Amino acid sequence: MATLAVEQVAATLEGLEETIIHKLIDRAQFRRNLTVYRPGQSGFEGDAVSSLFEIRLRQHEVMDAEFGRFHVPEERPFTSPLPASRRLVSIPENILTIDDYDSVNLTARIQSDYLSFVSQLCADGDDLQYGSSVEHDVQVLQAVSRRIHFGAMYVAEVKFRSNPTEYRRLIEASDRIGLVSLLTRPEAEIRILERVREKVAYIQARVNTSVRSLVDADVVLNFYRDTVIPLTKDGEVLYLFNRRNPRD
Amino acid sequence: MATLAVEQVAATLEGLEETIIHKLIDRAQFRRNLTVYRPGQSGFEGDAVSSLFEIRLRQHEVMDAEFGRFHVPEERPFTSPLPASRRLVSIPENILTIDDYDSVNLTARIQSDYLSFVSQLCADGDDLQYGSSVEHDVQVLQAVSRRIHFGAMYVAEVKFRSNPTEYRRLIEASDRIGLVSLLTRPEAEIRILERVREKVAYIQARVNTSVRSLVDADVVLNFYRDTVIPLTKDGEVLYLFNRRNPRD
Repeated sequence: MATLAVEQVAATLEGLEETIIHKLIDRAQFRRNLTVYRPGQSGFEGDAVSSLFEIRLRQHEVMDAEFGRFHVPEERPFTSPLPASRRLVSIPENILTIDDYDSVNLTARIQSDYLSFVSQLCADGDDLQYGSSVEHDVQVLQAVSRRIHFGAMYVAEVKFRSNPTEYRRLIEASDRIGLVSLLTRPEAEIRILERVREKVAYIQARVNTSVRSLVDADVVLNFYRDTVIPLTKDGEVLYLFNRRNPRD
Repeated sequence: MATLAVEQVAATLEGLEETIIHKLIDRAQFRRNLTVYRPGQSGFEGDAVSSLFEIRLRQHEVMDAEFGRFHVPEERPFTSPLPASRRLVSIPENILTIDDYDSVNLTARIQSDYLSFVSQLCADGDDLQYGSSVEHDVQVLQAVSRRIHFGAMYVAEVKFRSNPTEYRRLIEASDRIGLVSLLTRPEAEIRILERVREKVAYIQARVNTSVRSLVDADVVLNFYRDTVIPLTKDGEVLYLFNRRNPRD
């Protein structure tokens, strides 16, 4: 059985932070452009129902599905149905002990939280750059989703292995509250939040503000505190309740 | 007629630097994965000829074309043929005085330079993350292309307007060397190169190197010096030779 230390999982999560921050900052170079989220206002030929954002996300995922993206455990799709992969994807051996990766799929809540968050991330108003806005939205969502699902599955598995007896007991008792309590490490969460705030502030500290829009570090911290961390934890619980054969 | 100051054009170009740097750093989190650039080795069903990179770029541009991306002057496509836009795109009034934006299209050289550059940007070897690698390649190429074509067209127009008599004389004489000389401002180029190196170094200065791969600031400086700046200048010349009615 493959092994993975908790430190390696934490290191991967930390490495994904820069990617998320880069993509949030790049989205914030455009206005909110709320028109792109309004159903039926896409202006897209042949689709009088969806928003431009929805059409872009769906088309992007169709392309990604054909490239095999969703064979990767932590890449969970936001849309369905999707076509089958048109290439053979080599997935490295991993430690996960779950039959259907999609039993841990938090994308609906990631999307809904992110769409509320756009109003805090971006300056008010409309700059007509609709295509660029939804293109960056998709990049942000995919980066956030990768981090949440990677954390949910790998952190839960590593923690399970560190204390299988207690985790088995709680899973068999369907004790959700007990599981959340055993999974939670407040000091680790505080460390992540402080690190994220520092990174956002630091990356932008010397930016020329006459040519780039700044993102408030506290706004990103709040997104981590209110969305990334809680959804990761909910995903850990989902993972544990769907973990294969608790006696293996 | 719309107007635009040279300072505003320079500011836009400066603002695009962070986006390019973010995307280069994100691509460098994956190995070179040279397999993705080998024709016929995509493993993609129904395509025994192209590389995985080529298929991804083409499919991405098909999607982008339907979203109307290439109606924007500085968004020039790498591939053809492409489908027509499926939405109405609002393009703000601009200063450009050229009939066919695609008469300034440097994408073939951008792509060829970038593909050589991947070996300097990324660590040697193969991590099997082929889908992610080509996805990031497309993001880098689009960011670099936007910067080069924006610079080529808007800088040339602004410079033309600052000295129309002399530019007209050189254009009518088909004096390419004279045009390059009149367009070139060595001190501005040096300032850009220094700024880019500083940004790359600064953005990464406090990164946890056990979880993130670093990009050498000089490698990005070289890419700007050998590709971004010269191709922008070649694009300025193309723009001027294709500029509408020199007497307007």
